[in-house]
Amino acid sequence: MGQVRVDLNLSLDGYATTTDQTPEDPFGKDWDRLVAAYVATRTMQERVFGRPGKGTTGLDDDYAAAYFEGVGAEIMGAGMFGLHAHPDDPSWQGWWGPNPPFGIPVFVLTHEQRPTLEMEGGTTFHFVQTSIEETLARAKETAGDLDVRIGGGARVVKAYLAAGLVDRLHVGIAPILLGRGERLWEDLREFEQDYEVTSEVAPSGTIHVTFSR
Amino acid sequence: MGQVRVDLNLSLDGYATTTDQTPEDPFGKDWDRLVAAYVATRTMQERVFGRPGKGTTGLDDDYAAAYFEGVGAEIMGAGMFGLHAHPDDPSWQGWWGPNPPFGIPVFVLTHEQRPTLEMEGGTTFHFVQTSIEETLARAKETAGDLDVRIGGGARVVKAYLAAGLVDRLHVGIAPILLGRGERLWEDLREFEQDYEVTSEVAPSGTIHVTFSR
Repeated sequence: MGQVRVDLNLSLDGYATTTDQTPEDPFGKDWDRLVAAYVATRTMQERVFGRPGKGTTGLDDDYAAAYFEGVGAEIMGAGMFGLHAHPDDPSWQGWWGPNPPFGIPVFVLTHEQRPTLEMEGGTTFHFVQTSIEETLARAKETAGDLDVRIGGGARVVKAYLAAGLVDRLHVGIAPILLGRGERLWEDLREFEQDYEVTSEVAPSGTIHVTFSR
Repeated sequence: MGQVRVDLNLSLDGYATTTDQTPEDPFGKDWDRLVAAYVATRTMQERVFGRPGKGTTGLDDDYAAAYFEGVGAEIMGAGMFGLHAHPDDPSWQGWWGPNPPFGIPVFVLTHEQRPTLEMEGGTTFHFVQTSIEETLARAKETAGDLDVRIGGGARVVKAYLAAGLVDRLHVGIAPILLGRGERLWEDLREFEQDYEVTSEVAPSGTIHVTFSR
């Protein structure tokens, strides 16, 4: 039986999203700062940016590699897939190009009815209008003995955490203060009491905190 | 010339204060959980609880020992001294008994006029009605070549941090989620940009993060 897993990048003040996007700079500078150490890893350079042999090794890369291991299905919110940024655009296929780095079935939680998207490399996007619990049941069935990853965004993750449905939460905390955005740590009082919590610091300065049960 | 320093215990969700105090349990359980690793150190056991030779050694104790080293004056808020909990009580002398663990002049920021309190062991409480800047100038003059510590509470610390008056901020982050209280990380966007940030994890699970300039 697989586990339900979450991996997120957070700022030290607990924000999982950034707010400095502008028409001129559609991703903003904060996102780059938030994910810099993660993007710099060999795993991400190879799997997402197509640069084999490039990138950092060590602790940050260990977590990045683990992110992709043993996952049989993913659940993400409509915002993470890009439906909020691209409303009513049937040609939108997500941020990741024709060959997304997932390689597994992905369930996108949305009120929008859209046909299933079969992408290259094994990624299939299913657009589902079910509750988080029903969606998880379907994802677990799809994943079989492998894990289900709750990919994001922050609000979807928080809903799964608050419902007690996550077995392993890993946050990579960048030592920066964003001051605004979506906070992960809200309404999660005593969340840690059902988990073992371990932490370690990478040479990049990223603080890796893992809740597992 | 000394530095201006802050040391605080924080929860992973960024709270520096706890909210579960009741008439039956006037300190609450959260505070004990927040400061458990700090209170357990040899330094705290010796200096605050009068138990020489007891307590943990290692990283947590290194930070606890550093807390007391090289400080020539302290600034604290009225709440930390206990004036909010004991209003209009001229006999109130703080939480720490006749021999407080400071051993230095302490400037208490308050609107209340109170006579200076000379305690045992070198602690003197001065009650000042000046701005945070004026109070810091006076504390620096008192400290001479030694450091000034901003002791707390969280609101006083935040005012000094936001004003750019702190040279070194150390937070000991306990891996617990309180869900409510006074947040340290508010309105401090990009605070880290004027500092070098280092982090390390103690065997207790406490994540020590230090901003220095």
